Amino acid sequence: MRIRNKPWAMDYLKDNGHIVDTEMTYKNKVKNFFDTDQPLHIEVGTGMGTFITKLAADNPNINYLGIELDKNVIIRVVEKIIELDLKNIRLALLDANFISDYLNDGEVSRIYLNFSDPWPKTRHARRRLTYHTFLKQYHHLLDEDGSLQFKTDNRGLFEYSLQSMNEYGMKFEDIRLDLHDDEPEDNIRTEYEEKFSRNGSRIYLLKASF
Amino acid sequence: MRIRNKPWAMDYLKDNGHIVDTEMTYKNKVKNFFDTDQPLHIEVGTGMGTFITKLAADNPNINYLGIELDKNVIIRVVEKIIELDLKNIRLALLDANFISDYLNDGEVSRIYLNFSDPWPKTRHARRRLTYHTFLKQYHHLLDEDGSLQFKTDNRGLFEYSLQSMNEYGMKFEDIRLDLHDDEPEDNIRTEYEEKFSRNGSRIYLLKASF
Repeated sequence: MRIRNKPWAMDYLKDNGHIVDTEMTYKNKVKNFFDTDQPLHIEVGTGMGTFITKLAADNPNINYLGIELDKNVIIRVVEKIIELDLKNIRLALLDANFISDYLNDGEVSRIYLNFSDPWPKTRHARRRLTYHTFLKQYHHLLDEDGSLQFKTDNRGLFEYSLQSMNEYGMKFEDIRLDLHDDEPEDNIRTEYEEKFSRNGSRIYLLKASF
Repeated sequence: MRIRNKPWAMDYLKDNGHIVDTEMTYKNKVKNFFDTDQPLHIEVGTGMGTFITKLAADNPNINYLGIELDKNVIIRVVEKIIELDLKNIRLALLDANFISDYLNDGEVSRIYLNFSDPWPKTRHARRRLTYHTFLKQYHHLLDEDGSLQFKTDNRGLFEYSLQSMNEYGMKFEDIRLDLHDDEPEDNIRTEYEEKFSRNGSRIYLLKASF
């Protein structure tokens, strides 16, 4: 997604330091973020945050952390959190390559990846959020019963991810090759998902664990 | 596929005992079937045989065994083999549940499953040719470098099979969620594949090994 640069973005984020961490303060930051000690679910690549804010509103007994690299995008999520007055969702302005520096091992019980950048060129494979180096990070972050949920409309990325997760030794819990055909009641559509589905794209889903 | 019963089918097959084994003679039968000792590829559920006869004609240095349960269907393959005068393809009228009684361990270097019956009801899952009991048979039959190639147009069966093969610990070599989009040059279309593709169905492919 291309978003116009907002010169005031960083100031706005710093003013809302109780909602979004821009300082990449490593480790143990997350716990202090939340009023209540309860299971932590994270979304890597939160985008404009429709998905994770909806989840947070629906599940007050879970803490959510949205991770997003783009400051011009993440301000939209901050706005939503303020508007909905949600206490159980916080954000980190962070490169996904560094999530295991930021979070503690075993601290997370679910990871969501939604419509991640497909990086279709083979030479960019290592940037895909399902490349084995990322899977290794998720493996460390997730607790014993933890799981990963991955959605995309990109066929190539999904084919790649099935192969990558299989090769890593992950266990497939659920696979949907056309999620909106007989859509599960608890499916929360992201902005992209709504748009791509209207365009006739199939939505793919994979739930897997280590 | 529903084929009219041909009362003369069994007589016809027995008359062509040098091409098709109807006697389920267990073990070591297959080697005597072929003039040349060369790698053995098998197709489980050969149907009318378009796929395997084309493969056999294209690859004289490989032996092919087609396995099919329906005598009224397998006669069509016998006719093709006679017509094309192929020496490197033979058939067995055999229930797939018994292939590991029929073939020796490590005797096969490739297994093809094409458009197998999806058995969509959960209570029939054990009949699917990618159910774990079948995978175990394939595991024993295949040699060390052996692989399995599976094609279907049935989304539910493909989802199930990805999960089943992942759970068995198979390694995914290639996954195609829309095989006819950028179709590989060496893809051989089966009768079903041609028909389903014309109807706009997607064709799925998985190559995997143990």
